[in-house]
Amino acid sequence: MTSETLDLSLALLRQPSVTPIDHTCQTIMADRLSKIGFNIENMRFEDVDNLWARRGTESPVFCFAGHTDVVPTGSLDAWNSDPFQPEIRDGKLYGRGSADMKTALAAMVVASERFVKKHPDHKGSIAFLITSDEEGPSINGTVKVVETLEARNEKMTWCLVGEPSSTKQLGDIIKNGRRGSLNGVLHVQGQQGHVAYPHLARNPIHEASKAIAELCETVWDHGNEYFPATSFQISNIHSGTGATNVIPGTMDVTFNFRYSTELTADILKARVIEILDRHQLQYTIDWTLSGLPFLTPVGELVNAARDAIREVTGTETELSTSGGTSDGRFIAPTGAQVLELGVLNATIHQIDEHVNVAELEPLAEIYEQILVKLLA
Amino acid sequence: MTSETLDLSLALLRQPSVTPIDHTCQTIMADRLSKIGFNIENMRFEDVDNLWARRGTESPVFCFAGHTDVVPTGSLDAWNSDPFQPEIRDGKLYGRGSADMKTALAAMVVASERFVKKHPDHKGSIAFLITSDEEGPSINGTVKVVETLEARNEKMTWCLVGEPSSTKQLGDIIKNGRRGSLNGVLHVQGQQGHVAYPHLARNPIHEASKAIAELCETVWDHGNEYFPATSFQISNIHSGTGATNVIPGTMDVTFNFRYSTELTADILKARVIEILDRHQLQYTIDWTLSGLPFLTPVGELVNAARDAIREVTGTETELSTSGGTSDGRFIAPTGAQVLELGVLNATIHQIDEHVNVAELEPLAEIYEQILVKLLA
Repeated sequence: MTSETLDLSLALLRQPSVTPIDHTCQTIMADRLSKIGFNIENMRFEDVDNLWARRGTESPVFCFAGHTDVVPTGSLDAWNSDPFQPEIRDGKLYGRGSADMKTALAAMVVASERFVKKHPDHKGSIAFLITSDEEGPSINGTVKVVETLEARNEKMTWCLVGEPSSTKQLGDIIKNGRRGSLNGVLHVQGQQGHVAYPHLARNPIHEASKAIAELCETVWDHGNEYFPATSFQISNIHSGTGATNVIPGTMDVTFNFRYSTELTADILKARVIEILDRHQLQYTIDWTLSGLPFLTPVGELVNAARDAIREVTGTETELSTSGGTSDGRFIAPTGAQVLELGVLNATIHQIDEHVNVAELEPLAEIYEQILVKLLA
Repeated sequence: MTSETLDLSLALLRQPSVTPIDHTCQTIMADRLSKIGFNIENMRFEDVDNLWARRGTESPVFCFAGHTDVVPTGSLDAWNSDPFQPEIRDGKLYGRGSADMKTALAAMVVASERFVKKHPDHKGSIAFLITSDEEGPSINGTVKVVETLEARNEKMTWCLVGEPSSTKQLGDIIKNGRRGSLNGVLHVQGQQGHVAYPHLARNPIHEASKAIAELCETVWDHGNEYFPATSFQISNIHSGTGATNVIPGTMDVTFNFRYSTELTADILKARVIEILDRHQLQYTIDWTLSGLPFLTPVGELVNAARDAIREVTGTETELSTSGGTSDGRFIAPTGAQVLELGVLNATIHQIDEHVNVAELEPLAEIYEQILVKLLA
């Protein structure tokens, strides 16, 4: 079976484009888009390559968004084939980035080629916003491109992010929003001493134990129609000198909230502080807001995606706002409708990341049909 | 003011003898003891230097016991002077080991020199049992020396351990026994995952939080006439991969009980396991019993120490069994009377550990007067 989407996927998967290295992936895509009338802008910020490509000058603007960078491979020994030498075994395409998200990038390009061939004089514009810093600090990627576009008042109407949204079969889930993400680093101050003289020391592990248990038990909200309940997770906790007879003087706790639109970051901060103060801890806390929540209600874009998925695969799609952050959080504040639709996410970031080869052409077809519904 | 005890203390404090490194401290002591007729035996076991020195071959045997090793310094930035460049400020001698317990070692040597000078033909024997592994695993230190002595049927009648027993003024407290010490290393098993997908992971920090709070709050007993209440302290807690978006798969917690004769190690183990099981944790736990409780009732040694303290300082001494383990736990089972008498323990194991310079000569005098009462 020949497949244009598979062929382009293979070309992209052969590039070891670990964040923030693009490794010519964007050039490969831009060459194809340029041939069908896209205007190409390479926007490099610091060490990050970004691509802004647009066909047409009118509104509405439909934008495909995504990233060429991939997470590190982990131990090469653990892979059954070279993560940057894509290999098909038993109908599965193995390689780092096969699910997250180079096959979606290939499907976007192929869908655009087919759509432009049939509708050379389509309505509005088609655009591509592609970064090589989605898996990393996300400072010089999508956020900077969006700033540049906003500065010249260049707006997207609809944005489809090709993140792997599907869980059991292609198109079963699309993400029409994302929870907010708030990080905290809690530093609890105690007083170091000898375990045999606890009255001369203050053990930060003991002093904080009830507050931590309460933080872990708290129900922060119940979510709402679009969002699951806000979740709190401690990712790291460290205290102790290594010695077994020393009461440590400090403890550090790193935690993360994924929060719904029922709450704000300020409300979460205030509730955490209330708990820590009530337990009379001596502490400092550093907050980092890594993403505001966003939501694209049902409308033209969601309906186009749902209809296209149903026509191509027969699947009824479920809307979801769960899961990790994506660059959608940077695009949504411009007023664009944003959703995420891509392949199955079961193996992303893992050893032997893979995707079903049989999903690739249907994904390109879904993307093409969305273009048809919105711009034909 | 010149002071032989201060001078020898300074020489010992300049050696960075962090467990198990002796760093020539025992050589410095042995050189002095050798000159006044002590027979020197260096007993090295694995990586631990030990010194057994004895003057005389007869019974009764009075033994000074102690350790040259010190606990790690912690952050050097936090010290007001180099922990291994002893410095006197406002009448206080600063340095790691100044309280625990190099000044006591110096006082023992100086006391022995003065006593031997005045009583060259004293009764019985004077001995020194010095290790460089009291603050560490305590496997190749005093316990091995005691085994060696027992194997050749060499017995101590009285043993004075120079641990810092005093709390408000020199000699206000002597320790005539010690609590038992039971260590546990708890390994809590969870399942690693992404913080955005907590339902696919099990966070060991969260799962254990209530059990840990309960362990910290539990009253284990109320002690008795000789022993304070049993205490529980967590010394180390570690979990997390370093990444802020990963739920860790495991957590490790190290804790210690100092327990009275109201309980046994087996009872404590059973109560900890009951709490962990009731909170349905998946865990393993490794126990190490590092010392059974022991007690030396009032007798010749306690009376000699109390009288010497009263004569030198005017202080009435209180007997206590609180505080940390010491190597006395390894010596007491041989049948020796064991007590601990040393400088103030307020700053041991802390940043800016120090001792009052004005305590050093009185401590040497107390030690000398005990020798007079028992061996003159």
